[in-house]
Amino acid sequence: MAEGYFHYKRDALATFDLFVRELPANRAYLVACGLEDILAYIRELRFTRDDINYLKKQRLFSTDFLKYLTHFRFRGDIWAMPEGTVFFTNEPMIRVTASILEAQIIESFLLNTINLQTMIAAKASRVVCAGRGKGLYDFSLRRTHGSEAGIKVARAAYIAGFNGTSCVLAGKLYGIPVVGTMAHAFVMSFKHELDSFLAYSETFPVRTTLLVDTYDIKKGIKNAITAGLYLKEKGRRLQGVRLDSGDIVSLSRLARRMLDKAGLDYVKIFASGNLDEFKIRDLLQRGARVDNFGVGTHMGTSIDAPSLDIIYKISEVTDEDGRFLPTMKLSKGKVTYPGRKQVFRVQDKYGRFVKDILGLEKDKINPALSARAGGSLLGKGGVKGRPLLIKVVDKGKVIYQLPSLDKIRLFTRSNLARFTAALKEVYSRYKYPVIVSPRLKKLRRSLASQLEKRQ
Amino acid sequence: MAEGYFHYKRDALATFDLFVRELPANRAYLVACGLEDILAYIRELRFTRDDINYLKKQRLFSTDFLKYLTHFRFRGDIWAMPEGTVFFTNEPMIRVTASILEAQIIESFLLNTINLQTMIAAKASRVVCAGRGKGLYDFSLRRTHGSEAGIKVARAAYIAGFNGTSCVLAGKLYGIPVVGTMAHAFVMSFKHELDSFLAYSETFPVRTTLLVDTYDIKKGIKNAITAGLYLKEKGRRLQGVRLDSGDIVSLSRLARRMLDKAGLDYVKIFASGNLDEFKIRDLLQRGARVDNFGVGTHMGTSIDAPSLDIIYKISEVTDEDGRFLPTMKLSKGKVTYPGRKQVFRVQDKYGRFVKDILGLEKDKINPALSARAGGSLLGKGGVKGRPLLIKVVDKGKVIYQLPSLDKIRLFTRSNLARFTAALKEVYSRYKYPVIVSPRLKKLRRSLASQLEKRQ
Repeated sequence: MAEGYFHYKRDALATFDLFVRELPANRAYLVACGLEDILAYIRELRFTRDDINYLKKQRLFSTDFLKYLTHFRFRGDIWAMPEGTVFFTNEPMIRVTASILEAQIIESFLLNTINLQTMIAAKASRVVCAGRGKGLYDFSLRRTHGSEAGIKVARAAYIAGFNGTSCVLAGKLYGIPVVGTMAHAFVMSFKHELDSFLAYSETFPVRTTLLVDTYDIKKGIKNAITAGLYLKEKGRRLQGVRLDSGDIVSLSRLARRMLDKAGLDYVKIFASGNLDEFKIRDLLQRGARVDNFGVGTHMGTSIDAPSLDIIYKISEVTDEDGRFLPTMKLSKGKVTYPGRKQVFRVQDKYGRFVKDILGLEKDKINPALSARAGGSLLGKGGVKGRPLLIKVVDKGKVIYQLPSLDKIRLFTRSNLARFTAALKEVYSRYKYPVIVSPRLKKLRRSLASQLEKRQ
Repeated sequence: MAEGYFHYKRDALATFDLFVRELPANRAYLVACGLEDILAYIRELRFTRDDINYLKKQRLFSTDFLKYLTHFRFRGDIWAMPEGTVFFTNEPMIRVTASILEAQIIESFLLNTINLQTMIAAKASRVVCAGRGKGLYDFSLRRTHGSEAGIKVARAAYIAGFNGTSCVLAGKLYGIPVVGTMAHAFVMSFKHELDSFLAYSETFPVRTTLLVDTYDIKKGIKNAITAGLYLKEKGRRLQGVRLDSGDIVSLSRLARRMLDKAGLDYVKIFASGNLDEFKIRDLLQRGARVDNFGVGTHMGTSIDAPSLDIIYKISEVTDEDGRFLPTMKLSKGKVTYPGRKQVFRVQDKYGRFVKDILGLEKDKINPALSARAGGSLLGKGGVKGRPLLIKVVDKGKVIYQLPSLDKIRLFTRSNLARFTAALKEVYSRYKYPVIVSPRLKKLRRSLASQLEKRQ
């Protein structure tokens, strides 16, 4: 396709929107994630000599086009929602304006990156909401789709509010706190469970969490208590016990009682084993006495929705005279919004977010527009809509200063806190209002009939 | 955990099995995939100075242990099923015998790699079975979990029988045929659909597939016919038209009629849009006239089962005297098979696979064993069970000669062809017989009661 553009649309500029068409079941919001990698990609994108040679061997591309690729750089503009921004369907979370060829070449990487990281941040955020302040740890590396995904999942989960990860490489790369407990194999490599517990406690006197379900859980807890008392005698504290199977509600209550009775009330209870937001909500509602959850496969693969309905669609393109003309798709059930758009978030006088307006960039949220939309866009307090897309790449140069990971994490939390609780329910059917601006509505209507006639 | 082993089990050797506990719904088999990456990992595994410094900063590890890591190499043995081998639950597809510390350090990478690639090879294989010989192309890059996953998915799908991929980097890395068609944006960047079709046809006179559903599909097909006749006049052939929305059965029949009537009976029909094995089976049963399918998200994320219940469990460990003692887990619903195991595949006199025997390595499938198992292990023709696990790493050295990708692909096809058709149904409830050898059964029974007593 790029070669086609090269011959026929070399000077054409275009705008593309990256957005999600529909939310997965039970989801009421998404969390923007992946911008850091997009910006690194934009900085580094090149075709190497090796790449060109491979393409040449396909006997499909012209010499001129291959020569063009050797000098290829992305030189356009990119607008994006900062990582951690809560967003909704049809809202462009990335907007690219560039030579149509450049805008198209970056499509796959943008979609691939945002799909994974935003999907995981959204899933992990749901787990955080269900966890009601309990400790949450990413244990998904074994089942993420490759090691790259393992690292990105750890980062997205941390942004969403997780407390740490078992992925040591993610810890090294991003400074995320790393955690680990023992596995069954460690216990099984000793003749007696208690021996394995004592050996582990000796090795990590300040960070020991003992896995108690390899053989018989009740005996396992007893052995953990023995190890805990042994550490206590030496003036140290057993950190926790971990339950990885069975009925977590009754087992956690049993473990709590046994630990408390033994004077080990400071020992935390850690639960793991195919957990997700649904199960965690249920466990806590049923009175489980769990302090920390290890959440793996379900979060790390977004198991109930392992992809987003995320797309990258052209919304305007220049004509022969270099003027931008809006465009849109008319395919059945896949109609898009034309023109260069912006998302405006409206808050009430308490700072709570009450609605978004999907408009054209030239829309300004002002009393006049508000009046045209029936006066409903602005609250009584005279609040204003804040544009969510900010410029991050200018003529190919990254101009956005990336916040630290902990700042992104804090921003995610404060951002989410300003939405109604109904949004954050595990089984949410809440639909946050996203209103299409009158000007965009009108453009879409008139363009649709114009295109139907033209074709 | 490794530090615990370092202090308490430095000389212990252990065997670990990597296997799948349960199959996802509708699945009756899995396809081994990922060994190539495992072997590369074993060759290259090192802790860099940078890694050690990071670990040091955690203030968790002893100087001795960190020093040990600087010299760390995997020095054990690995047995594995060759890529493309069809296998079933509880069958070890990788078996590691090594220092317990080394065997444990490689766990995460092994699970992560085999989970992704085997899951995708199995899913893609189902699509291939449903496709009944039609062309199948991997279009999943936009929705795979990261770019690494995109590349691995392309490879796994090709092994399973796909014909090509849209992931150009996978084409470059693995020599997989790459394919591409135009996207809606290309059409929309021109004022008239026909202009975009002619431009594309000029650019790729021998490999043009035109996307006909951007505006009105019927008009789109007409425009494609115009472009096809234009190419025909110049002595060239339009390759295909692509349908990406709407009712593929009626639209493909309409397209076929219109193309044939215009003398373009050689033009292929390409269908895409959220396809999977269920939809492809349905489309073909309902009489769709499709020659090639582009299969994306559903295959590339294994959307109905985005993870396998894959685990890595210790099965034997040496005692103080260096003797291997079998071990097993007794956790509720998670009991494992002890001992050093092998999988034997039994075929009938026609070469059809009829059952597998999960046994101990020292089990030999011979008439004596057959007799002990009630004579049912061997067919009347006196056929023999072939061991599926072969040695691929010897004392840390990779001794397995990797077959070419095309050889693996052929092996997968011929391997699958020897199983009954019931296994390959899209909605399969067939359970291929995997029999536990008498000796293994006995070991498991006696060990379970022994462990219960001991703890």
